[in-house]
Amino acid sequence: MAIRFELVHVCRQSGARLGRLHTPHGVIDTPVFMPVGTLATVKAMTPEELKALGAQIVLSNTYHLYLRPGPDIVREAGGLHRFMNWDRAILTDSGGFQVFSLSPLRKIEEEGVTFRSHLSGEKLFMSPEKAIEIQNALGADIIMAFDECAPYPAEYEYVKQSVARTTRWARRCVAAHRRAEDQALFGIVQGGVYRDLREQSARELVELDLPGYAVGGLSVGEPKAVMYEVLEYTVPLLPADKPRYLMGVGSPDALIEGVIRGIDMFDCVLPTRVARNGTVMTTEGRLVIKSARYARDFGPLDPHCNCYVCRNYTRAYIRHLIKADEILGIRLTTYHNLAFLLNLMAEIRRAIREDRLLDFRDAFYARYRMEEDRAF
Amino acid sequence: MAIRFELVHVCRQSGARLGRLHTPHGVIDTPVFMPVGTLATVKAMTPEELKALGAQIVLSNTYHLYLRPGPDIVREAGGLHRFMNWDRAILTDSGGFQVFSLSPLRKIEEEGVTFRSHLSGEKLFMSPEKAIEIQNALGADIIMAFDECAPYPAEYEYVKQSVARTTRWARRCVAAHRRAEDQALFGIVQGGVYRDLREQSARELVELDLPGYAVGGLSVGEPKAVMYEVLEYTVPLLPADKPRYLMGVGSPDALIEGVIRGIDMFDCVLPTRVARNGTVMTTEGRLVIKSARYARDFGPLDPHCNCYVCRNYTRAYIRHLIKADEILGIRLTTYHNLAFLLNLMAEIRRAIREDRLLDFRDAFYARYRMEEDRAF
Repeated sequence: MAIRFELVHVCRQSGARLGRLHTPHGVIDTPVFMPVGTLATVKAMTPEELKALGAQIVLSNTYHLYLRPGPDIVREAGGLHRFMNWDRAILTDSGGFQVFSLSPLRKIEEEGVTFRSHLSGEKLFMSPEKAIEIQNALGADIIMAFDECAPYPAEYEYVKQSVARTTRWARRCVAAHRRAEDQALFGIVQGGVYRDLREQSARELVELDLPGYAVGGLSVGEPKAVMYEVLEYTVPLLPADKPRYLMGVGSPDALIEGVIRGIDMFDCVLPTRVARNGTVMTTEGRLVIKSARYARDFGPLDPHCNCYVCRNYTRAYIRHLIKADEILGIRLTTYHNLAFLLNLMAEIRRAIREDRLLDFRDAFYARYRMEEDRAF
Repeated sequence: MAIRFELVHVCRQSGARLGRLHTPHGVIDTPVFMPVGTLATVKAMTPEELKALGAQIVLSNTYHLYLRPGPDIVREAGGLHRFMNWDRAILTDSGGFQVFSLSPLRKIEEEGVTFRSHLSGEKLFMSPEKAIEIQNALGADIIMAFDECAPYPAEYEYVKQSVARTTRWARRCVAAHRRAEDQALFGIVQGGVYRDLREQSARELVELDLPGYAVGGLSVGEPKAVMYEVLEYTVPLLPADKPRYLMGVGSPDALIEGVIRGIDMFDCVLPTRVARNGTVMTTEGRLVIKSARYARDFGPLDPHCNCYVCRNYTRAYIRHLIKADEILGIRLTTYHNLAFLLNLMAEIRRAIREDRLLDFRDAFYARYRMEEDRAF
């Protein structure tokens, strides 16, 4: 087996899980937030900086790497770890979500999906077999089945068919997988907001006895309350001895709520994407650094943060950099946002170990200014 | 006195100077290349990275900082060193060159220059007094007199008048300077390619007994042979016990030739600017990393370089990053180019100490593919 999941502790107050996920590239303490490195780079960061922040795994995108530089070059480089100079764990998604969300034109058939490159317009084809072939070439520690991610909202009949197709495609992924000894293939539970479809999807995928399971089709525009409800009835259907991954979630409140509902792994572009726009994540809520109110603010981004950025730079300086489109500005906001989220996860793990995650949540919310209703 | 220049050794083979320039923010080994941090940041670099490369001084731009964030904010932050978190030496130029080269509209009068912001179009005024007032607020260790930099080519009569004006403005700068105890004001010798005007400019400025002198008005489009000729008759006119600064020069060959002609200090945007375009400086010449020939090149940028980038990343990966507009690509090419130039200066200093700078030059040229005729 490529990975081994060790359940270390269950929080007596919340039921949240503390674990250790053993991979061919090191151990991951769960619950974990995985920074997203779409194109074989977590935008604006070096691997050393990610390590300094305690990142143990990053996510990279099959769809994007398929378009450039192409899986052959990555394989010839010795695989994705060597290509991007990252010797810790990597997870690659299957490309399914991007094919559905980025392509200007797509046609879904049983065999696979025909789509156009969002870069060149070239017509391309992705199938379960192709997604696994690419991911085998990239060589990540955890790879994802090629699924059909229904949008929100979506009709029951549409979601029902996509659930059935996702199961058939998952079986084809298992059959096509050539590196089960060093790459763990996760299944993705779909079913939208329909409880019976989530149950069907989970049941059919659990039958495949995969080394881990993701909950997909959430954080696609639905209100957070809806996402939490789906998690509440879906997560218990997944095997307790395997890692559970909630895709596309990265806001602090959704991370905490996801962990409370039994999730072990998360990924999201949120911290890095908003950073490039000058939005900073803090213990008091988000902060738009371009605002004139920070022009002469010589304090740190987050007074409760002890990261490199908060120890060395002022809001006034970072505001100046972001307004002037300086790369250092983006570096500093990105670094801080990742530090903030990775530190939050470390605090969550500590709270689980000490059986006080609900207390932690209440204390966090008391300080944190909520802003967004929909999931992210 | 704000600074003290210590002449350590003169190369017996070339006449080049090895020195130590003592400033309120540390000692600078000369000859030195100063990375340019236009807007209070050397683009894409942190202060720690600059230190790791051995940078002892950076240059920042009065014109740009005047427009944003404005000298008041920098002064309130505790000065430029604290604002940008750089505790080593800083030199600020006077803004003269930018007023002449960037402004869409400018009117030069004896009192000063009326110009428009290249950002907002706002009409602004810069004078010797204003340039010094701003530089006093910024607080750099070395500040520059406000001069009139004639273009190339320029008629004799035009240059003659700009030389006379530059002297008058230099006197006004001296009179306006309020921090001579911790900021050294350098004069700038003008005179274009006219030997008698260079002699006049040098003579008049040396009379002011300033702590250092720059040669300005070069590297503005003239052939390198012309620049070297001007240096040959201008540098000997400057006091031997004070540092000599050639403005705007950063190509490897021009650095070597400048040092041989008695220059101690250089600055240039070249290494950082071309890096953002994917051009890499190597011991064999420039390399355009976007070229298809590097798509599967898994060697380092420069096989003779031992910098962080060359130890950890391949041409294929950096090409991928630059083609995908990834910030890490710019970080890596910028870091390498600065490492290359700062290492070149360290090798030049070693060759001076060992009285073999001409041998070093010949060996460097034997490997280096020249590409550009004009100065830079």
